Amino acid sequence: MSAPLPLDKIAQQMRRDSLISTSEAGSGHPSTCLSAAEIMSVLFFDEMRFDPSDPKAYDVDVFVMSKGHAAPILWSALKHAGGIDEDLKNLRKFTSTLEGHPTPRNPWIRVATGSLGQGLGSACGMAWARKKDGHPGRVFVLMGDGEIAEGSVFEAAAFASFEGLTNLVAIVDVNAFGQSGPTMFKHDTGAYARRFEAFGWQTVECDGHDVAAVQKAFASVRDAKKPSVILARTLKGKGVPFMENKDGWHGKPAKKGEELDSALAAIGEANLGVVRVTARRYGNARPKSGTFSVAPKYKAGDTAATREAYGSALEQIGTQCPAIMAIDGDTKNSTFSEKLKKARPEQFADAYIAEQNMVSVALGAATEGHIPYASSFACFLSRAYDQIRMAGHSEPEHLVIVGSHAGVSIGEDGQSQMALEDLAMMRGVVPATVLYPSDPVSAEKLTELAGKTKGVVYIRMSRPKTAILYPNDEPFTVGGSKVVKSSAKDAITVVGAGVTLHEALAAHAELAKEGIAIRVIDLYSLKPVDEKTLLQAAAETRGIVTVEDHGACGGVGEAVASAIAGKAPVKILAVRELPRSGTPTELMRAYGIDKDAIVTAVRSMI
Amino acid sequence: MSAPLPLDKIAQQMRRDSLISTSEAGSGHPSTCLSAAEIMSVLFFDEMRFDPSDPKAYDVDVFVMSKGHAAPILWSALKHAGGIDEDLKNLRKFTSTLEGHPTPRNPWIRVATGSLGQGLGSACGMAWARKKDGHPGRVFVLMGDGEIAEGSVFEAAAFASFEGLTNLVAIVDVNAFGQSGPTMFKHDTGAYARRFEAFGWQTVECDGHDVAAVQKAFASVRDAKKPSVILARTLKGKGVPFMENKDGWHGKPAKKGEELDSALAAIGEANLGVVRVTARRYGNARPKSGTFSVAPKYKAGDTAATREAYGSALEQIGTQCPAIMAIDGDTKNSTFSEKLKKARPEQFADAYIAEQNMVSVALGAATEGHIPYASSFACFLSRAYDQIRMAGHSEPEHLVIVGSHAGVSIGEDGQSQMALEDLAMMRGVVPATVLYPSDPVSAEKLTELAGKTKGVVYIRMSRPKTAILYPNDEPFTVGGSKVVKSSAKDAITVVGAGVTLHEALAAHAELAKEGIAIRVIDLYSLKPVDEKTLLQAAAETRGIVTVEDHGACGGVGEAVASAIAGKAPVKILAVRELPRSGTPTELMRAYGIDKDAIVTAVRSMI
Repeated sequence: MSAPLPLDKIAQQMRRDSLISTSEAGSGHPSTCLSAAEIMSVLFFDEMRFDPSDPKAYDVDVFVMSKGHAAPILWSALKHAGGIDEDLKNLRKFTSTLEGHPTPRNPWIRVATGSLGQGLGSACGMAWARKKDGHPGRVFVLMGDGEIAEGSVFEAAAFASFEGLTNLVAIVDVNAFGQSGPTMFKHDTGAYARRFEAFGWQTVECDGHDVAAVQKAFASVRDAKKPSVILARTLKGKGVPFMENKDGWHGKPAKKGEELDSALAAIGEANLGVVRVTARRYGNARPKSGTFSVAPKYKAGDTAATREAYGSALEQIGTQCPAIMAIDGDTKNSTFSEKLKKARPEQFADAYIAEQNMVSVALGAATEGHIPYASSFACFLSRAYDQIRMAGHSEPEHLVIVGSHAGVSIGEDGQSQMALEDLAMMRGVVPATVLYPSDPVSAEKLTELAGKTKGVVYIRMSRPKTAILYPNDEPFTVGGSKVVKSSAKDAITVVGAGVTLHEALAAHAELAKEGIAIRVIDLYSLKPVDEKTLLQAAAETRGIVTVEDHGACGGVGEAVASAIAGKAPVKILAVRELPRSGTPTELMRAYGIDKDAIVTAVRSMI
Repeated sequence: MSAPLPLDKIAQQMRRDSLISTSEAGSGHPSTCLSAAEIMSVLFFDEMRFDPSDPKAYDVDVFVMSKGHAAPILWSALKHAGGIDEDLKNLRKFTSTLEGHPTPRNPWIRVATGSLGQGLGSACGMAWARKKDGHPGRVFVLMGDGEIAEGSVFEAAAFASFEGLTNLVAIVDVNAFGQSGPTMFKHDTGAYARRFEAFGWQTVECDGHDVAAVQKAFASVRDAKKPSVILARTLKGKGVPFMENKDGWHGKPAKKGEELDSALAAIGEANLGVVRVTARRYGNARPKSGTFSVAPKYKAGDTAATREAYGSALEQIGTQCPAIMAIDGDTKNSTFSEKLKKARPEQFADAYIAEQNMVSVALGAATEGHIPYASSFACFLSRAYDQIRMAGHSEPEHLVIVGSHAGVSIGEDGQSQMALEDLAMMRGVVPATVLYPSDPVSAEKLTELAGKTKGVVYIRMSRPKTAILYPNDEPFTVGGSKVVKSSAKDAITVVGAGVTLHEALAAHAELAKEGIAIRVIDLYSLKPVDEKTLLQAAAETRGIVTVEDHGACGGVGEAVASAIAGKAPVKILAVRELPRSGTPTELMRAYGIDKDAIVTAVRSMI
């Protein structure tokens, strides 16, 4: 180790940078950077092991900036540590990776932040993966006090203590102010300590502006037997008299000119250039990897639910590749993810009934080189929509989200358990891929494909057993579809997916008796969608009927209507009212998505 | 009061009913009913004040069944109390209101449950409203232990203690099993007690199968100075040897015949008919009400953001009508909901950064006759998507959800703060109404209209200031639209909403110079959508260009494509990649939703 760095001075320099860069940008959150300056200084220039020349290093500690609006001080820390070259004055410019909130456009960022209360969950995922993988490095996460109001924080806190994540260190910058006023507990760090202790954490309270106290706090948790949290009392806007501990300065830079000058004068000169941090790596940690593929073994006449096929596929690929992991929200015996738990318990995590944390842990594990499959009933994934959205923004190498029990075909459990909006919500995630198998073979193949596809992939699984439609070696691709029935005389095209594809096939048989030929398309890739095949159907038939076990908005029908862009008439069969308890058959009939509804729709379009 | 009821016997009868009705249905969750039998018996037949002849009574205590899968024992309690007549054997039948999970189809149900961890939040909303309204009644909520893993529970717990909701009594049926295995803490009620105490609650632990102990627990919190929780140790499947305290019996009825018979034999005979509960009402409580309307006062040439107009409208209607309330997730100075807080602090609640609880509290308050407006950045409403979904299922009289800062036009803060999926997610809520004003006048009018529209209504507001488009007395309707520009020679129709409508008008002006006339439609009602006007445009022009500050899935474009059902070519301009920091102008240009993109699209379609 070289001589100790001037941590106080570095903190002051980072305050200056945060003030200058936000003033230059004309927007941003300097006051929330100022409160965190000593914490960031001690973390980046003393406590944390990393290599400033290698943002993608695996064998180092990890930092997660959960309070994403403090991005300017993160950029400043990385700049002075020698990790980035860019001029900090480029903050928030369209051409810069120094964005208003951290995104992976900057190579130092593992998970996008800016939606509060999510950093701890993804840090849990990283720490969980490291514990499983025998990685010696630690995971640090800086949170604001305001975000401790998010329930997701306590889902993560429960997971961390239950899983014994002693490699996880959280720091809360308790500056007492949220965006629009004081927090619930202001500077009462004891209130936070009691909560974290009740959730099984080791806590330490300190003065967050006293470098020695912050160092001592970090030292005190270095060999903690529990996950640990440092509750640092700070002042929002620290060091600038007109901002310090004042309400009304959230998300507001000092005006360039007199206001900024007076702020900088109050901070004082620092004149700190790059103080390049010595690279400290663990050296011998390596991520897990391995190849995988499924080999479906169904026979004609077999039936199985796609969710069962998912479990089978997950077990196959998980036993082949140690990087595959699964996490489930206490539905593992319904989603069949328990098959991996039984075969490879070390590749499985129980999230209990905490879907937000389930997704965040999966995302965190993904950044450690794992290929996570996170599963629950499709309807309960709505609980984690913000986490899924931010996972999309985090651009993980792989993250598969699996929703079972889609739509009214689940039957008697009733509306609360029926996902009718999951396709809309998952298609809504800008970079996400959305898949929807209709039979056990495609379910297995798409489960494999999902884990080989870059980014966030959603697969929708169904509850009822369905027939085998494809041979075991049938190929499937992201963006593909299958023309399951076609002839030169097709009058109308029917597009189905999942359980409704089987209704479409039944309609095909019935209409054939009347001499009416229909084309039937299995739209197993909802996003991206197979525009070419759909446009061909639009051109070759008189109209398209879509049928889905989902609401009318944002699902199969709208994906098709949008893809064919007005080139043929479209009729969307979907669930258009709140469904009730009943048998699957009753419900599919009542809400107009069964064979008879398809037959009627086809006849109406001829 | 009449003589004490035989509470033990009632519990046994409810066990029998739960076993019989689920066996008859062939599905359902008897074991989770059996653990709750004494709790339900004491609540419904001793502790709680209600009127079995009047499910809609206001001046009584309220019960929320947060563990919704225990519906069969709720139906049994209501049956024996004299509240419902229906044969319990109709459980889960398509024609019955005795659904698998409680829904408001049954008049006793205030909020639909079945997505766990939400009951406490809506109970908080009821208790908050009652405290504000001087209502003497209490709110009881029965939770399962598994659902305590949901972070939303601790958002609610924090709110309840912060707001001093001493009228709130939670009971946790600690039966130690979730769906797929033991809970994190099994029968360690102390672990739950420590958590609730850290969150400022009074706790009491008891044997949940000892009627006297349960009665004593209720008595001990009757005059609590804090919100209180009874942690009742119970056995899942209590009373049936092959189910009791056994894993693998979640969501699984006894088979009719030998298995059911042996279960019933173990429970023993009860032979209890209706033991009609004596009506106990508070008598003098009345819900608040009042009329309201906005009177926009903009002048031509004014500019204002729709979010500012929202604040102005909220203040106007809130000061007129005491039933109007607002709740915000620490963004009140950005959504402008703070205008109501300043004018009528007693009609405002700070949810802090806890959007799930924000929506649940609003829903609960709605069931007390309030007209709640819940607001945050539109992107952060994704945090509460499951709560919003269940709010839709709860069919409240009124519940308005307001999302500000939609889309890339927010500028430099970057992608995490830009809602690009809120229209997809809100249109996805089957019974929801979705509105999207483009100018301050329509924003005020739609804010009023939302509070007068039945059910869940979403309004999307924008960050940038926009011009006034409409006179102050312009009428707006749910399901309407405005043809802002039209002529007999319109070549193409451009459909915009919010900020993009202004781009469409600029495109109209530019194309007019070239002699190209376009029709411009303000699609301020996304759901329901004005099919008639869109179909007319499809018939009268050569194609439709839609333009939205939102992703390409589930928003304006797909709403239009779906509505015109292939009757004209459609081109959807939307944000198709993850956006970055930049100025609003730069971003709208970069992602192809500005005037120039519209002009190019129109030219390409002519």
